[in-house]
Amino acid sequence: MADELPAMTLKAIGIVRSEIKQPARHDWGEIVSDIVINSNLTEALEGLEKFSHIIVLYWMYQAASGKVPLKIHPMGKQELPLTGLFATRSPNRPNRIGKATVRLLQRQGNILRVEGLDAIDGTPVIDIKPYIPGYDSAANTTVPQWITKAKQ
Amino acid sequence: MADELPAMTLKAIGIVRSEIKQPARHDWGEIVSDIVINSNLTEALEGLEKFSHIIVLYWMYQAASGKVPLKIHPMGKQELPLTGLFATRSPNRPNRIGKATVRLLQRQGNILRVEGLDAIDGTPVIDIKPYIPGYDSAANTTVPQWITKAKQ
Repeated sequence: MADELPAMTLKAIGIVRSEIKQPARHDWGEIVSDIVINSNLTEALEGLEKFSHIIVLYWMYQAASGKVPLKIHPMGKQELPLTGLFATRSPNRPNRIGKATVRLLQRQGNILRVEGLDAIDGTPVIDIKPYIPGYDSAANTTVPQWITKAKQ
Repeated sequence: MADELPAMTLKAIGIVRSEIKQPARHDWGEIVSDIVINSNLTEALEGLEKFSHIIVLYWMYQAASGKVPLKIHPMGKQELPLTGLFATRSPNRPNRIGKATVRLLQRQGNILRVEGLDAIDGTPVIDIKPYIPGYDSAANTTVPQWITKAKQ
């Protein structure tokens, strides 16, 4: 049924500029990077600086291409259980869209300085949304045990 | 610079089945809908049911086409300030991707029953991610005053 749907094509609205050049495991929490939005879209950023946090959707262009495995060990860790792809945050997905919630440190015109963006230098950005507590956060959450293990 | 990037094409991984057939303002919080994932991807959902909440990325196919305005009154409300598009959640965006955090009530094979999904019947789904508190939520947030007004 979903196969009958029309093709959906994305256009980059900007690009990530970061000191991180290669996709490897990093502690991204304190990484400061710039999102350079296409200058013809600067006006569309007005008022974003009133939000402390934003949601960044980006295209994980360096993720492995070709057929993606349907089950994986999260983060490639063999000690974590074999898990369905959509129950993980692996970048190797049918659609390579990454989603990060980051602190917006500053906006200068078309440049957003953010903290904690887990995207490498050169990553195409496809959307910016304001983070709205309550709508974007969830209460009374549960997660499987491996998530806790993965953080250790 | 971002204009030099290659085209990015999405494929639907599933479709929304909901009693809501038209894009209008609804109180979505209690709407229960089904996400029917393509059956060849069922295996990729294994383990998702251990999460209480999931993130759904979807294609807002009924949003207005053509050139999008760069500044708008949020939710079409004239009493809310003229605001840059990326500082709002308007569906009329350069890339029509919607992002919702919803409660996962049940998984039955390739069907995810969810609560609070603000997408109409027939909406193409492009990604499912597990909601991870701390990574997907933010602490010490601030938002502009109009967000509070908009909720009233």
